[in-house]
Amino acid sequence: MKKYYDLNVPPRILLGPGPSTVHPRVLRAMGHPLVGHLDPQYVNLMNEVQELLRYVFQTENQLTIPVSGTGSASMEAALCNFIEPGDSVLVGVNGYFGERLCDMAERYGADLQRIDRPWGDVFTVEDFQKALNKKPAKIVALVHAETSTGALQPMDGIAEIVHKQGGVLVMDCVTSLGGIPVEIDKWGVDIAYSGTQKCLSCPPGLGPLTISPQAVDVLASRKTKVANWYLDLTMIQKYWGSTRTYHHTAPISMNYALREALRLVYEEGLVERFARHQANAELLWEGLEAMGLELQVPSAHRLPTLTTVKIPEGVDGQEVRKQLLDIYNIEIAGGLGAFKGKVWRIGLMGYSSQQENILMLLSCLENLLKQH
Amino acid sequence: MKKYYDLNVPPRILLGPGPSTVHPRVLRAMGHPLVGHLDPQYVNLMNEVQELLRYVFQTENQLTIPVSGTGSASMEAALCNFIEPGDSVLVGVNGYFGERLCDMAERYGADLQRIDRPWGDVFTVEDFQKALNKKPAKIVALVHAETSTGALQPMDGIAEIVHKQGGVLVMDCVTSLGGIPVEIDKWGVDIAYSGTQKCLSCPPGLGPLTISPQAVDVLASRKTKVANWYLDLTMIQKYWGSTRTYHHTAPISMNYALREALRLVYEEGLVERFARHQANAELLWEGLEAMGLELQVPSAHRLPTLTTVKIPEGVDGQEVRKQLLDIYNIEIAGGLGAFKGKVWRIGLMGYSSQQENILMLLSCLENLLKQH
Repeated sequence: MKKYYDLNVPPRILLGPGPSTVHPRVLRAMGHPLVGHLDPQYVNLMNEVQELLRYVFQTENQLTIPVSGTGSASMEAALCNFIEPGDSVLVGVNGYFGERLCDMAERYGADLQRIDRPWGDVFTVEDFQKALNKKPAKIVALVHAETSTGALQPMDGIAEIVHKQGGVLVMDCVTSLGGIPVEIDKWGVDIAYSGTQKCLSCPPGLGPLTISPQAVDVLASRKTKVANWYLDLTMIQKYWGSTRTYHHTAPISMNYALREALRLVYEEGLVERFARHQANAELLWEGLEAMGLELQVPSAHRLPTLTTVKIPEGVDGQEVRKQLLDIYNIEIAGGLGAFKGKVWRIGLMGYSSQQENILMLLSCLENLLKQH
Repeated sequence: MKKYYDLNVPPRILLGPGPSTVHPRVLRAMGHPLVGHLDPQYVNLMNEVQELLRYVFQTENQLTIPVSGTGSASMEAALCNFIEPGDSVLVGVNGYFGERLCDMAERYGADLQRIDRPWGDVFTVEDFQKALNKKPAKIVALVHAETSTGALQPMDGIAEIVHKQGGVLVMDCVTSLGGIPVEIDKWGVDIAYSGTQKCLSCPPGLGPLTISPQAVDVLASRKTKVANWYLDLTMIQKYWGSTRTYHHTAPISMNYALREALRLVYEEGLVERFARHQANAELLWEGLEAMGLELQVPSAHRLPTLTTVKIPEGVDGQEVRKQLLDIYNIEIAGGLGAFKGKVWRIGLMGYSSQQENILMLLSCLENLLKQH
């Protein structure tokens, strides 16, 4: 009979695209005994999680919840609840997650239109305006912070043109929420989703989602059932709303963790948190450039939470990553899709965004590159 | 500025339909620091989780994984991957979760046929044979252990007649896996799904799923993309298979917990674990009947892990539950659907199935009923 040993995990420093390192207080919160998912005490906790999510999303949206799956589930929830077969959907694609939005939208029968920019680039308001002039869209979707490229999409003026032609705006803020400003109400974003394991520094397993009253109206006026049972917000909103109608059993321990992670954001304050992420990103960028490395994305639209670094010619990028992990317990990631084999991806998110982590990474990386 | 206090949860004894009480070792496992979801150490852990799931499912199925959502997500995965629009699906409905199977199947375009039995009743092989004679089905789905009624469906002979006419058999074992025998290979079940928060006594958040080679063939021969991105096994099997292709970020801490919960099952042994669940259920049944209470389901097909008790006339069932929780910190549940207001549901699952819990519940319940 095979023996299964005690769990024994190495002390990794997580500087990849997520998960980020989780604060000890969040780990400890998960260790609390369970209460039932309809227990009055749990209902209180649900309310607090919703309040704190509204704080970090900077929104008054009543329908602001953690989806009971990872960020990919909240991405799918952001689309499947609003798309009916034949609906016109416009997606901006400048990286891996834009492609995924297209894949998902088509599965729900979208009449898909896409605008493309090279990986690492961002869109202008005019790009969207031109596409909408050609063909209006019920739903327009874009990625605020492209985890695959490290590009930061400016949001000024986009919601206005989407609303003007009667549509709603979906925004992916998986790699921005809790790390850089995400102002749902001010920007006029209707539907935004994220993951917990990036700048919130909570383990993966929940997908924060916020829905504007206008988008709730779109949901309420559907002619067909949502084509996805598990993510059907017409039912889920009753569990998170005042009736607390059973839909599925919420991931209780994960919600303990999310509450604690959000409490840490709240205690730090958004302004201070964003300043920390920005300052630490600049420290990283300076250090990498001082080492002679080239950053993929120009500083004008470079994302502080995820940096793409060009792998120098002649260097085996995968081998360097392996050595960082095996020798120094530091995780960084390689490229995806168009950037596969071409870049390293370094995340500075949430609790991982600390000066000592950056100085250690720079030092270890320099040491390894000397040997190549 | 509102103050959010330290997490402070009451010490509930969970004797409802799930979550069950979680073993301290499982809570402790969740407190371990995270490693990345593509880390070689995590890949080892994934392999162990798969091995241990095969042990508890009693199967050799290669494609045996925890779905990254709760039991409802694994239920949906069990259907959406195998149904293409227009496919004939037969569902046995004798409770709440049979109804849910129908709802889900229809969302994926199933040509749905259902056979019904009163809540609390079970089906015979002949029931299914008759329905299949009338109209063959590509997929036949039933519930092994109906959490809403406490009825246990005998499985002998069902897979044979489903296979004979060329279909695959889907089985819900949410409330049976790890508590009573679930013999996937011996019974010939093709697709089975469960949750972690019942007899495995792990927090909710993952959905164990096992797929036979025959069902993998059905998946591989689809003409259309799976209509659900997050649960698409054609992609997920590559992450859990040898290529480890990124699909979504796995809920890492939840998988730590599941590994530890499964390790506890493995250490106890299936035979011993099933005997414990059976003996404790009998203790509960005797105690309830000695108190003059009537059990809903006849002993011939009564489920040891979830007992439905008729609420005596003149007793406010909801008030009794509230007092059990408020005064004694014991959670039991009320009825769903057809049984709403008519029964209490008492779960004895996993770590919650302990003699002392039963004796305490009987004593507290008797004390409360005396006052009514």
